[in-house]
Amino acid sequence: MTSDAGAASNALAVKRVGIDTYRENVAYLHRRCPLYLSEGFQALAKIEVRANGRSILASLNIVDDAGIVAEQELGLSEEAFAQLGAAPGTPVQVDHAPPPASISAWRRKVEGERLGRADYHAVIEDIARHRYSKIELAAFVVSTGHFDLDREEVLFLTEAMAAAGRTLDWHERPVVDKHSIGGIPGNRTSMLIVPIVAAHGMLIPKTSSRAITSPAGTADTMECLADVELPFSRMEEIVRELRGCLAWGASADLSPADDVLIAVERPLSLDSPGQMVASILSKKIAAGSTHLVLDIPLGPTAKVRSMPAAQRLKKLFEFVAERLHLTLDAVITDGRQPVGAGIGPALEARDVMRVLSGDPRAPMDLRQKALRLAGRVLEFDLDVRGGEGFAMARDILDSGRALAKMDAIIDAQGRRPFDPGAPRLAPLTFEVAADRDGIVTAIDNQRLSRLARLTGAPKVQGAGVDLFRKLGEPVERGEPLYRIHAEYESDLAFAREWAARGSGYAIGEPGDVQREFAEF
Amino acid sequence: MTSDAGAASNALAVKRVGIDTYRENVAYLHRRCPLYLSEGFQALAKIEVRANGRSILASLNIVDDAGIVAEQELGLSEEAFAQLGAAPGTPVQVDHAPPPASISAWRRKVEGERLGRADYHAVIEDIARHRYSKIELAAFVVSTGHFDLDREEVLFLTEAMAAAGRTLDWHERPVVDKHSIGGIPGNRTSMLIVPIVAAHGMLIPKTSSRAITSPAGTADTMECLADVELPFSRMEEIVRELRGCLAWGASADLSPADDVLIAVERPLSLDSPGQMVASILSKKIAAGSTHLVLDIPLGPTAKVRSMPAAQRLKKLFEFVAERLHLTLDAVITDGRQPVGAGIGPALEARDVMRVLSGDPRAPMDLRQKALRLAGRVLEFDLDVRGGEGFAMARDILDSGRALAKMDAIIDAQGRRPFDPGAPRLAPLTFEVAADRDGIVTAIDNQRLSRLARLTGAPKVQGAGVDLFRKLGEPVERGEPLYRIHAEYESDLAFAREWAARGSGYAIGEPGDVQREFAEF
Repeated sequence: MTSDAGAASNALAVKRVGIDTYRENVAYLHRRCPLYLSEGFQALAKIEVRANGRSILASLNIVDDAGIVAEQELGLSEEAFAQLGAAPGTPVQVDHAPPPASISAWRRKVEGERLGRADYHAVIEDIARHRYSKIELAAFVVSTGHFDLDREEVLFLTEAMAAAGRTLDWHERPVVDKHSIGGIPGNRTSMLIVPIVAAHGMLIPKTSSRAITSPAGTADTMECLADVELPFSRMEEIVRELRGCLAWGASADLSPADDVLIAVERPLSLDSPGQMVASILSKKIAAGSTHLVLDIPLGPTAKVRSMPAAQRLKKLFEFVAERLHLTLDAVITDGRQPVGAGIGPALEARDVMRVLSGDPRAPMDLRQKALRLAGRVLEFDLDVRGGEGFAMARDILDSGRALAKMDAIIDAQGRRPFDPGAPRLAPLTFEVAADRDGIVTAIDNQRLSRLARLTGAPKVQGAGVDLFRKLGEPVERGEPLYRIHAEYESDLAFAREWAARGSGYAIGEPGDVQREFAEF
Repeated sequence: MTSDAGAASNALAVKRVGIDTYRENVAYLHRRCPLYLSEGFQALAKIEVRANGRSILASLNIVDDAGIVAEQELGLSEEAFAQLGAAPGTPVQVDHAPPPASISAWRRKVEGERLGRADYHAVIEDIARHRYSKIELAAFVVSTGHFDLDREEVLFLTEAMAAAGRTLDWHERPVVDKHSIGGIPGNRTSMLIVPIVAAHGMLIPKTSSRAITSPAGTADTMECLADVELPFSRMEEIVRELRGCLAWGASADLSPADDVLIAVERPLSLDSPGQMVASILSKKIAAGSTHLVLDIPLGPTAKVRSMPAAQRLKKLFEFVAERLHLTLDAVITDGRQPVGAGIGPALEARDVMRVLSGDPRAPMDLRQKALRLAGRVLEFDLDVRGGEGFAMARDILDSGRALAKMDAIIDAQGRRPFDPGAPRLAPLTFEVAADRDGIVTAIDNQRLSRLARLTGAPKVQGAGVDLFRKLGEPVERGEPLYRIHAEYESDLAFAREWAARGSGYAIGEPGDVQREFAEF
C-alpha cells in the first residue's frame, strides 16, 4: 500500500538503535510519532522502510522513551540498519508491508497441499529476501516437515533454495566436497580431507558453518589456526593457488534462504529428512560442487538411529542429487560415539593437527574416518581405480604432504598462533570419573555435546571436553573418563552440575558394548 | 539450569526499557555484560528472570548502547517489566530458561500425533503462563489446524483452555450469553440483545473483545457510549444490580491461553474449526455461562461459505458444548453482507442507539437480526414457550424497556458523551458512487472490513464507512454507495486508493442478487 498523498507526511529520520535482534529486523517508532497515530500501525506489525531506492521489512516495536527514538525518528536494530544502508538522519518512508507475493502458495502449503516447482521458487525467493515473519516461517517449516513433502517437492525446494542466492562457477570439474549431516561431537574430518584431497590436486573449495547448537563447527575449529572470514575474492585466489581452502561460508551468500529457515528450525529442533536434504544440497549446488561425499552417522544417540531410516535418507539424498546433476556418494558411518578425543574448538584443532603431523597422541578413530572419506573423494578422480582411494589418502597423509598443504592453506588464510603440542585450553578444569570397573559400553553424543556447550564452547575457544576413554575400552572405578575445561567459574558450575546428573558414559561388561551398525 | 555456584555471579539490576513489544516479553542485555560473556547466551535465546520470588520468561536482545542498558543491568520491555513487578534497580537472577514441562507433548503434536486430555492440559497451562516462544506457538497452531484435530481433541483443548485461567461462578442459572463467530462488519447485535435480555430479568454478564483485525469489536463500539475497562469487582456489582453489562473481557483473565494463541493465529490468518470452537467455548465456560446462542453467519465472503461447512461447524460446537454441560443454540444466519449501515465504532454505536430509541433511520436488518437472536436467548427461560421469544423481544424493545436498561448500564459503567442523532464522525469524507444503474447484487464483507480498517477504525472512533445501499436495493449511476470517514489525510488517501481498486459492491439485474442460504 503506497500513496502519493501519504508519502509526503510519512518521512522520518532513520536512527541506528544499538540493539542486536539477530536475524529478525526490528523497527522502533515512538508512541507519539504522528505516523503511528495516523496509520493504524500496531506493535509487531510488519512494515516496509524505504530510503535511497532500497527497502527492508521489519517488525514494529513501540517506544515510550525519546532517548531511544524521538517522535520524528524511526529506529532500526543493528542488522536492519546495516541492510538498509542509509546514513543516520536520512529521511525514510514507512508503510505497511504488503504481503509477500508468494503468500497464496505459502497458505496452500500451510493448509497441507502439495506445491509445484513455481510455488517453491516464489516462496523461497520471498524467504531469502526476509519477506516472511518468524511465525510465518515457523508455520512453513512445520508444514514442510515430517511426512509432508514427497520427494519431488524436496527436489523443487532444493532447486529453489540453490537458485535464490549466488551461484559459484569454478570453470572446471570435478569440484569436490564433503559434508556430514551432523550430530556427532568432534567429527572434524573436513580439516583432514581438504588438505589430503587438495594435495592430490583436486579442487575442494570448502566452506563451512559456525556451530549453532553444537559445541564447535568446522569454521570455529579452523579459526583457532587461521582466519576464516575471508572476502570471497580472497577465497577464490587461495583456491586457485592451493586447490583448497577452509573458510566460513556465510559471506558467500550461498542459499541465503537456508540461513533464514535454520534460524527457525534450530530453536524448534526440527530437522526433517526433506529439510535436511534441501538445506545441504542447495548449499552444495550453489557453491558449484559437482561431486559430494556425504557422511551419514548412524547410532543410538546420532541424528539417524536405525539402518532403515539411514537408507531412506540416503535414497532421498540420491534422488535429489541425481536430478540436480550432482554426483553423490553417501556413506553411512559409525555414529555411536564422538569422534576423536576433544570436543570444543581448540581441543578439536589439536586433534586434527596431531593427525596431520603423525603425533602418536593423535586419535586413531579420527584418522581412520578421515582417510576412508578422503579415499571416497579421491575415487571421484577418473584416474583413480575403485578401492585405491584409501591407500592413496593414507600415503598423502603419512608422507607429510597433507600437513604441508594444510600449512600452506593456514598461511594463505592468515595464520594464528597455535601449538598442537600444548594448545591453550581454558584453565578451570574438572574431571569426571568412572563409578565402577568395567568396559565403556555406550557414550551419549547428545549429553556430551550439551556438556561441552555448557563449558562455553564454541564462544570460548579453549573450553570443552577432553575424552580419555572411548567405546570398548576398559576403565577402573575412580579413573577419569574425561576432563572439562572452562574459562569462567559459572560455566564450570553449570557443566559440573550437568555431568553430575549423568556422565553420558555407560560402563558394563564387554558383551554389552553397543554394536556397530554402520557400513564400515 | 540453576546452580549455587552460578547464582552469586549473575545478579543484575533490573531496568524498565521503554519499548512496547506487545505480547512478547523481551529482555535486553549489554554485549559486554559479564553474564552474557560467560554463560553462552545468544540473541533470541529464551531466558528466565527471577526477582522477589517471581519469575518471567523473555527473549534476549543484545544491546551495544549503554544508554539503553548498562553492563550491570538487565532491561525489560514494558509488559515484561510489569509482569515481573520488581522496582527499578532490584537485583534479578538470570538463567537459561528450562524447556516447558509439556515440551514432549508439544513435540508429539508438531510431529502429527494425537494428544490426550492430560497432554492438552499440560501444553495449555504452559501456553497460558507464557512458557512457549512465538515460533513454538506458531508450530502448535499449525499442527492443531485444519484436519489435525479430531472432535475429542477439540473437547480436550477447550477444557484445558477453560481450566487454565479464572472461572467465574454467578451462583444462579441460567447465565446466558450470545456470541458470533465473526467476519461480518457492523454485526453489533450484542449491544441490543444484552439490554433486551437483561430487561427480561435473565443474567447476561457480557464480556467482549476489542477488534484485532476487524474495524470494530463490541468493546470498541460500547466504548463510544461508556467506559468498558472495569475492574472485575465493579462489573460484578453492575451485573448483580442490572442483570447485564457490556464490558471488555481482557481484565477478567478468562481463558488466558486463548489470548496468547490468538496473538499468533491472527497474523497467520489461521482460524480452523477446532481452534474456533476451543477459543469461543473456553471463554464462555470460564465466564460461567450455562446457555449460549451462537451466531454462525453464512455467505460467499463470510467465514463460513457453504451450508455443509456451516453444518459441520455447528455439529462440532454442539459436540463440545454438550460434553461441557453448556446448553447451546447455534443459529446459521445470513452473512451475505454487512449488518446495519455503519462500519466503525461511532457509526455502529449510532446504529445501535437508533434501534434502541426507535429512530426511523435505524437499520432494519440490525433490528431484525438482534430481535431474532434475543428471542432465542429468551427461550432459554423455562417459562417462555418455544416460538414466543421473538415477539417478547420486540415488545421489550418497542416499549422502551431495552433503551431504559441500556441507559442504566451506560450510567453504571460510566457514561461518555454521545449523540446518536448527530454522532461526532471523523471529518474528512469521500463518497464512492455506483458506476452503473441497477440493483445491488453483492457486497464483499472482507473488502469493506479492510476499507474501514484503512480509514483508521477502530483506533479512531469516528472513522469508518457509512453504507447507503444494501443487497437488492436499486441504485443509479453516480449515486453514492457509501461514505468514508477519516481523521487524517493519509488514512483518507489509503482508503480512497483501496476503494478505487474495487468498491466491494456488485451492481446488476434483480435476478443476479446473491441468494440467501441461511436458516432465517
